[in-house]
Parts: sequence; C-alpha cells; structure tokens
Amino acid sequence: MQKWEVVEGNLASARGFRGAAVAAGIKKRHGELDLALLVCDAPAATTAGLFTTNLAAAAPVLFSRQNLAESHGRCRALLVNSGNANACTGREGLHAARESARAAAKLLNLQPAHVLVASTGVIGVALELGLITSQLPALVEKLSIENTSAVARAIMTTDTLPKSCVLRSEVGGKAVHLAGIAKGAGMIHPRMATMLSFLTTDALIGPRTLQNLLRAAVDVSFNRITVDGDTSTNDTVLAWASGLAAVGVRPGNTSWAWFLEGLTQLCQSLAKMIARDGEGAKKLVIVEVRGARKPSDAERVARAIANSPLVKTAIGGSDPNWGRILCAAGYSGALFEPSKVDIRINDLLVCREGVDAGFDETAARKELEGKEVILRLDLHQGSASAHIWTCDLTHDYITINASYRT
Amino acid sequence: MQKWEVVEGNLASARGFRGAAVAAGIKKRHGELDLALLVCDAPAATTAGLFTTNLAAAAPVLFSRQNLAESHGRCRALLVNSGNANACTGREGLHAARESARAAAKLLNLQPAHVLVASTGVIGVALELGLITSQLPALVEKLSIENTSAVARAIMTTDTLPKSCVLRSEVGGKAVHLAGIAKGAGMIHPRMATMLSFLTTDALIGPRTLQNLLRAAVDVSFNRITVDGDTSTNDTVLAWASGLAAVGVRPGNTSWAWFLEGLTQLCQSLAKMIARDGEGAKKLVIVEVRGARKPSDAERVARAIANSPLVKTAIGGSDPNWGRILCAAGYSGALFEPSKVDIRINDLLVCREGVDAGFDETAARKELEGKEVILRLDLHQGSASAHIWTCDLTHDYITINASYRT
Repeated sequence: MQKWEVVEGNLASARGFRGAAVAAGIKKRHGELDLALLVCDAPAATTAGLFTTNLAAAAPVLFSRQNLAESHGRCRALLVNSGNANACTGREGLHAARESARAAAKLLNLQPAHVLVASTGVIGVALELGLITSQLPALVEKLSIENTSAVARAIMTTDTLPKSCVLRSEVGGKAVHLAGIAKGAGMIHPRMATMLSFLTTDALIGPRTLQNLLRAAVDVSFNRITVDGDTSTNDTVLAWASGLAAVGVRPGNTSWAWFLEGLTQLCQSLAKMIARDGEGAKKLVIVEVRGARKPSDAERVARAIANSPLVKTAIGGSDPNWGRILCAAGYSGALFEPSKVDIRINDLLVCREGVDAGFDETAARKELEGKEVILRLDLHQGSASAHIWTCDLTHDYITINASYRT
Repeated sequence: MQKWEVVEGNLASARGFRGAAVAAGIKKRHGELDLALLVCDAPAATTAGLFTTNLAAAAPVLFSRQNLAESHGRCRALLVNSGNANACTGREGLHAARESARAAAKLLNLQPAHVLVASTGVIGVALELGLITSQLPALVEKLSIENTSAVARAIMTTDTLPKSCVLRSEVGGKAVHLAGIAKGAGMIHPRMATMLSFLTTDALIGPRTLQNLLRAAVDVSFNRITVDGDTSTNDTVLAWASGLAAVGVRPGNTSWAWFLEGLTQLCQSLAKMIARDGEGAKKLVIVEVRGARKPSDAERVARAIANSPLVKTAIGGSDPNWGRILCAAGYSGALFEPSKVDIRINDLLVCREGVDAGFDETAARKELEGKEVILRLDLHQGSASAHIWTCDLTHDYITINASYRT
C-alpha cells in the first residue's frame, strides 16, 4: 500500500462519478452557479452521512437524514443548491426538498429514496421549487467527468474560492482515489456548520464501515474548526464509495488504517481550507494545547481561545496580546494552574509561567503577520493535547454579515 | 417606605464616603484620570464583594478576595486604577497590589487588610508601583464629597462615557441612599467581566446580609449582560454600607425586600449602561425568551442569541435576519420544538411557528434602527422565561480590539 498523494482532479477522479452545475437563478447575482448534481453510476455504491446537531435543522438535512436511513446507505445521487439554505421554512421547505429529489430521481431513473439533497445560503426564505425543477433536465444532460469540477464552485456562498482536494494511492497495482469538496466561510463551529462537504472514493466499502470511517475522520477534522462559534442549521458531510477500484476496505484489516489515513488527510485539508477562508479572514490560526491533565481539558482550552473574539481580533491586528489567550484559557472551564502556563506564537515564547516572557515586540508582530499563525500553549499539568483550527476576526466579517440578506 | 427614586449625585451621596481621582500616568494618554481612591469614614462600615470566576484571576482580585475575607467584611477603602489590569503578572503583580494597598493604608491610618484594590486595562504588563505610590499623598489630600464624582471617570478604559447612578428613598423621615458606578465595554460576559462596579449606601447592614443582598442583585443584573462572550480576569463588584442613615436592613424584615429592590434597580441600571456602551456598540439589545419548559432552557436560548456574532452583526446592520436568531436558539442546547417558535422584533412578528411571518421588510428595518432593540422569543413549550442584555457587533469593535495594546 502506497502513501496517499495529492493529485489534480475533481470528485469524478474516483471512478464511477459524474457531476454538473448550472446557474438556476437561486443566487441573486445573475449567472452564478447555484445548482449542482452528483451521480454515482455504480449500482452497488454505498453512502455515509453526518448532519448538524442544531435542533432547528434545515429541511434538506431532515430529508436526507431520513433517505440515508431508508436506503440503508445506498444513495446514488446528490442535488445541492446554494443561495438559499431552505432552513426555517417549515412544511413548505420539506415539500421543496422532497419534490426536487423526486424530480431528479425520475430523470435519473432512480428510486426517490436514493437521492439526497443539500442546501446552503440565506435562512428563513422559501426555496422556489420551480427554479430547480426547470433546470434539472439541462443539469442531467450536462453530467460528465469534466463538468464535475463545477460542483465545487456551485456550492460557494461567501467563500472566496472553491475548496477541493484529490488523493491517490495504489494497492497491488490498483489505483484508488479519494476526492472531496467543501464550502464553509461563516457560521463554522465545532459540531460542523454552514459547512457542506461531499466526498467520493472508488474503494469498495460497506455502508456501515463507510459511516464509521467518516465519523472517525470528521471528528479530527471538520469538528476541529470554528469561525464564529455559530453552529448552522445545514451542515452536512456525505461520502460515497463506488467500489469500482476493486480494492476492499474492511475493519480489522490493514486496509482500514490505510484508508482512514487518506480520508483523514482529505478531511483535514478541506477543514483547513474552510478555516483559512473564514468570512473576512486573512489568516489561518492553529491553536495547539498540550500538557493538559486530560483530553477534555485540552480541548476546552483550545476551543475557548479559538472562539474568543478578543483573541481573534488581536491576531487580525498582529497584536501579540498573549494576556487575552491566557484569559480565555482561564474561563474555559478546564482545570490548570495559570502560573505554570507557557505560550508561544509559532516558536516565539511570549509568556513563561503565566507572565510576560520578556519577548521582542517587533519579532512577535512579525510572527503574527504570517498567513498561518500557531498559538501553542503548554499547561504543564499532564500529557493530554488538542488542536483547533480557526481564523482571525476582521472588519470584513462585519461587512459581510451586517447585510447578508440584502 | 418610599419607592427608590433616581437623583443627582455621586458615590458620596451615601453619607460617610469621600473620593478623589488623579492622573498618575498609567494610561498612555497624558493627563487622563487613571487612579482613584474611595474611603468610608464610618468605622463600623461593612463591605461585600463578588469576583471573577476566571481561573487566571488578576492580582488585585486575588488580593482583595483575601482581604475581604480576612477583614470579615470590614474594609474601609478602595484603591483602583485603569490603564493596566495587573493581570497575568505573577508574583510581581501581587507585590504591586499588596504594596499599593499598604501605602494607602498608612496614609489613611487604616490596617492594610482594610484596603481593597482593583485594576482594569491591558493584561500581561507589569504595573509600575511607583506611579501609584508617588500619587497617593496627593490623592488622599483631594478626598472630598465633590471630588468623588471623578472616580467614575478614572475607571474608564474603552468606555465612551462614565456610568453612574444614585437612588434615594425614605424610611420614617430618614433619607437612605444607594449609589453606584461601573465600567465595562469589552470582554463582558455572563459571569461578569472586565467590568468593575462599586456601590455605596448609608443604610445599616451587617456584612453577611450585605453579601447576600449583593449576590441576589448581581445575579439578575451584571450576570445578565454579555458583550463579546469573553469573561475577564478582573471583574469585581464591591459594595459598602456606612450605616450613617441609621436605617437597618435585616433578613426576614420588610426592610430586606425594600432594600433589595433598590439595589437591584441600581445594578440593573448600571448593567444596561454597560451593555449599551459595549465596545463599538450602537444599540442596546434585550433578548427576552418566554414559554420555555424550564428556566435553564430559557436562559440557554437567551444567552446563545445574545452571544451569536451573526445575530449581533445583523442587528448592527438593521437586517431582520430572524433565521439566525432561530438558528442560535437551535444550537443553544435547550429542548424545544422549532416549529412552535414565534419571534418578534420589538412588537413586530417576524417569525410565526418557525417560519417567515410574512412581515414588512421596511417596517422591520425601522424597528432595528432604534437605539434599543428587543428580541422576543416565545417557545410555546411552558412558562419559564429569561432575559439577557447585550449590544450589536460593529466595525468599531474590531478597530478597538485589533490594536488595544498599542
């Protein structure tokens, strides 16, 4: 088994997939891609999914969660739109989700329960079903390996660039692919978010195994990012395995660890792209906590720092305000002794044993001016560690969100 | 017993108090007041205090907490500075707190354990003891009823105006006063914050009774505000009772309810001033949740909404994005049925039973353009309710916090 390597491609680099996207007029800006279809042509394909924990889950989440269960992880297509989240839309929203899936199923000659839907965009506005159904024939017509590249662009909202990653490995001379796309930007929080991510592979994996692999990979990737602490109504991660590479992945087999490594690498790459592209963000911020008494303490400290508007605004301004970092750790709920804490910005020690380390201010500013900043805390209480990815908080976040609907 | 009425005055409107403030050079801007002293001349005065729950509590918090306990609630003076929080300053910081209190005690002819200290400002920078001790004689010299007005200005950091309130009532022809000042702005969170508040009264109250009254009043006032979700290292509320009005307040007596009503009114007035003056804030936002199954559910929903950057930014932009409000309620952890929720902006219904109420967009914008906005949620699940005060999130918050130290 080879290592996983990043290669060029799209979701259809994994054999058995085709996709396409069109401008259906759901987004206000004329001509922008906002409706996409992804189809798996392998009849034995399997599907896994993880959805938001928000109580006010959107219609597409409620609908897809049910279809995934009813089909026993055997869905074959995904219809996704941007520009409207179809959230807080009640019965009418569920109707739109159901009918758009039914229309797609008919054109694709699939059972309705084998089509999943996803939506992202503004909340609380009715999704016009007609905009979708009228474009479906053209969308099905365009399905191809090449056109699959457009899907990553069609799911963007306030994202500044499409997020996509393809990995390749080999087993006994057989090539295996893992591909993924994602969209993120605002409302990103630990339990996923306004985040959508769709993953494909041509490995051969049973539905339950795929679900377990997905949960393990998401836990150390998408569940480790935060932009503004808001957990969205729509966050969804879906994975398909076509099986066409004829390389099996089973629990208790060496193939499990090999595949999980690739899946984790894929999800972490996409998660970092999301954090880096947080609304208004200029920097990727990695919070690394070590020396905690237990893992939950390490995670609490990392999350409190990553969610602190004061810390994130200071990083935006390249201000080495380490006191705010220690302050956030202090209210995280974790138990530790503040007078033992060391804090580094990248490799520069700014706080030693809870007080100013006598660092060079100019050097610290320079560290913070990079596009990637690591905040390292050592609590010196034990051996547990955790990390969270986030971004800085800037004027552009305010500008984007003060009038998102208009 | 009369009702409590707002009157002109300062902390020394309660008989037995004197105060003064000077510019000691702790703040960077030359000539700004940054050091203040408040003294109670009644030897039998009592004191109560509540402090931050942050594990990285600042030196003045650690020191004052101890002095309050050691003196059995019989402190007689407060030395407070702005411009430097004396937080994350280790042993040196504790030394500065202790020595400044000792120097003040000597000049005031008090025991060192009878002097409290408080600090607010930048974290992680050593507090220069000499700046304080060199100004102490002049400060003691200036102590007077009139000069007490300057104390509210001397504790300001990013506050745009001093916060002060005086109440008066009468019992059997005897006038009783309750006075308070506060500073807030950034880092305001449920468990108090970079918030300082000092309260005086001339009622006659035992130290334990005063502590219980203070806790009850703070729980429904300062613990109900949030600006940015950060809980500071320095938050402190202190209350003094001189007893000089010769009106006693005892538990189990009608005087208890009467006094608590005044103290609550005082603390709520100051708390609202803080929320209204949140860093960069243009609006006071009141989140009112009713119809919850239990009080903790109501509070969770209210806090999640009040802490959501997406909600607060939308309010800043007068965007009636009620979907974000429902979304925040959905991830709050409270149990409710989203399809039953009604949301009003002031009195305008924007969401009925979890979906768009078909409201007039222009009318909704107009409601949001006011200086005070009430977000009312009815969960229709039960009869519990809660409220939280907060503010909108604007560009100015970013500007203020991106380079606070420089």
